[in-house]
Amino acid sequence: MPASLKLKSNVKARVLTGHPWVFANEVEVLLAPEHDGEVVECRDRTGRFLGSGIYNSRSQICWRRLSREAVTLDEAYLHGAVKRALARRGAGAATRRLVWSESDDLPGVVVDQFGDALVVQIQTLAMDKRRDEIGRVLMELVKPAEIIFRNDATIRRLEGLGQEVTTLSGNAWEPRWVKIDGFEYWLDLQNGQKTGFYLDQRTQHVVVSRYAAGRRVLDAFCNQGPFALHCAKAGAASVLGLDSAEDAIGQAKRNAERAGVKADFAVANVFDFFNAPERGDDTWDMIVLDPPPFAKSKSALEGALRGYKEINLRAMQRLTPGGILATYTCSHHMQDAELREVLAEAAADAKRRVQVMQFCHQPPDHPVLVTMPESEYLRGYILRVE
Amino acid sequence: MPASLKLKSNVKARVLTGHPWVFANEVEVLLAPEHDGEVVECRDRTGRFLGSGIYNSRSQICWRRLSREAVTLDEAYLHGAVKRALARRGAGAATRRLVWSESDDLPGVVVDQFGDALVVQIQTLAMDKRRDEIGRVLMELVKPAEIIFRNDATIRRLEGLGQEVTTLSGNAWEPRWVKIDGFEYWLDLQNGQKTGFYLDQRTQHVVVSRYAAGRRVLDAFCNQGPFALHCAKAGAASVLGLDSAEDAIGQAKRNAERAGVKADFAVANVFDFFNAPERGDDTWDMIVLDPPPFAKSKSALEGALRGYKEINLRAMQRLTPGGILATYTCSHHMQDAELREVLAEAAADAKRRVQVMQFCHQPPDHPVLVTMPESEYLRGYILRVE
Repeated sequence: MPASLKLKSNVKARVLTGHPWVFANEVEVLLAPEHDGEVVECRDRTGRFLGSGIYNSRSQICWRRLSREAVTLDEAYLHGAVKRALARRGAGAATRRLVWSESDDLPGVVVDQFGDALVVQIQTLAMDKRRDEIGRVLMELVKPAEIIFRNDATIRRLEGLGQEVTTLSGNAWEPRWVKIDGFEYWLDLQNGQKTGFYLDQRTQHVVVSRYAAGRRVLDAFCNQGPFALHCAKAGAASVLGLDSAEDAIGQAKRNAERAGVKADFAVANVFDFFNAPERGDDTWDMIVLDPPPFAKSKSALEGALRGYKEINLRAMQRLTPGGILATYTCSHHMQDAELREVLAEAAADAKRRVQVMQFCHQPPDHPVLVTMPESEYLRGYILRVE
Repeated sequence: MPASLKLKSNVKARVLTGHPWVFANEVEVLLAPEHDGEVVECRDRTGRFLGSGIYNSRSQICWRRLSREAVTLDEAYLHGAVKRALARRGAGAATRRLVWSESDDLPGVVVDQFGDALVVQIQTLAMDKRRDEIGRVLMELVKPAEIIFRNDATIRRLEGLGQEVTTLSGNAWEPRWVKIDGFEYWLDLQNGQKTGFYLDQRTQHVVVSRYAAGRRVLDAFCNQGPFALHCAKAGAASVLGLDSAEDAIGQAKRNAERAGVKADFAVANVFDFFNAPERGDDTWDMIVLDPPPFAKSKSALEGALRGYKEINLRAMQRLTPGGILATYTCSHHMQDAELREVLAEAAADAKRRVQVMQFCHQPPDHPVLVTMPESEYLRGYILRVE
């Protein structure tokens, strides 16, 4: 019989709205640390059973729902959850997200597929304790050549976990060319930044490139170049990719060369680039703004909004009439209403007519749950700027 | 020299944020009625010129921007604006919206194309005064066989305008079969409800039908049947369309017969249908909820939200595991945040895992301007209900 976590009577706990989390300040008494990393029940103030979840007294989010039913977190559960995650995604690209945390009933487990290699990130204590079982289940259901455990995210500290990178085989995974949506990228899945490629924008790389034919394109936060490469292949008149990271630019150049497409890349800070006097008259027919998250916390939001407005305003000013602006935010703390306001202010200041051509969202392999707003972090707009 | 409308100094007027409207309570003094229906300038409290727009002292929205430049509202202006509206839409279906009011710099003018016929709605005094010029410009640029002026919307009263329906030729436009996205619909453009077909959901008819193969589909507000027809053609196991209007159901049956697809239709109120005891065990694999606007005013919003929640909850309860719910709102007064909350509450009450498969929005022939929130009224979600 698992222990029970009881909600306070005077708090409207989020979990009562269908949300999968319970916060430490929403429960009457925290359970003893012996339950850390184990399954406990959650009950409301009347004792009504609300579900089974994983517990960690060290985390602000002390409980994360596994199921509305009573379950144990054994290999059978993991097998069932991974199988459902695969079924949700159906047949698809060889490179994509296979498992995404709460959205797939596996809180703290992220699995990305890059061809025959899986990259696993574990960010909760309960799942970390069961990493061997997770490895076995993935091997059985997906049959990859290798599983790389990238358990080096700093967020693991919130659960009292250390940082390490291992492979299931114990062998090093050598960097190599990996094909993603028609292009090859040089990926270092074991030691590279993040899991090696931003899989959440795969759809957008293609969608945006449909506007590129004949246009002079600026990709202002180009990273390894996927937007730039897709635009070049789609017949852009020219493509310039910018990134502040030298290694990203080096990689983007290599990727373009490998693909045999014509695109220029340069190391640059976008704010400086737009404001440089020698660029005062430069214009583009299309600009892509897919910046890293400016707002890394709620408190950083105000400054971040100024940053987003600045780059969007500069971009609108530098677009030729009828030009296309593809603009995104992947800040968890920035909601759609805030992005809209930033864009409206930029359009008003730029005195341009700005029309939405496409509304952009997370792809379904990063599932958004309607009862969990935190499951949505990526949004954008493809705009026509007249 | 046109007259000038001056903004109050103590009000943060919406027009200063790039919005195209000025409200009567935002100006220092209203101009004399002799300016009604004519072009006047708008100036801020310091006298700075903000743009040229059409004026009507009888309307709460007393000024609607035509341009940030000084312009006159003559045939050349109308010609330019219609030409830009056509250019924005490019080549496309023979049936679509060609001009949409403020979003196309023609406040109060809506033009829908149904093959070789245009349906024009005029809802501002200034444009009503120039209806002959608008007819001439459309004839010259689009060359339709007929233009039907459906100036019978009750909203015209807000501008002091009467209601009438006329044709450019003076002849009656006989009801006929009109092809829209692969299906023929029996349309009465001159005397039918609205402009005869909801063009704003054309994209969604196709998008939704991609989920229909093998599924038992319920289209709960089917109107003339476009969702039902597209789903039937896409290989749905069965299709049932409901509508409370008998003539809509009669027409839907006729349209299905004409297309040679198998779909059933019945007159029913959806709330009653879901709650009928004899239907207690009925389930579907896919449900489409595209209701008429429940919230026709801001004050009616609360009741409307209860209605939206009720139908979405019932639909989730009646879906088989993994079923698809395509749910929309076209209420101007209901924002995305409100729809989200309705869906989250319904999912929590139904105790179902509800994932967004696709975010749905207005198509680009009904352009959303980032500086005009009122230009967006249609949104929806395609959900997977486990």
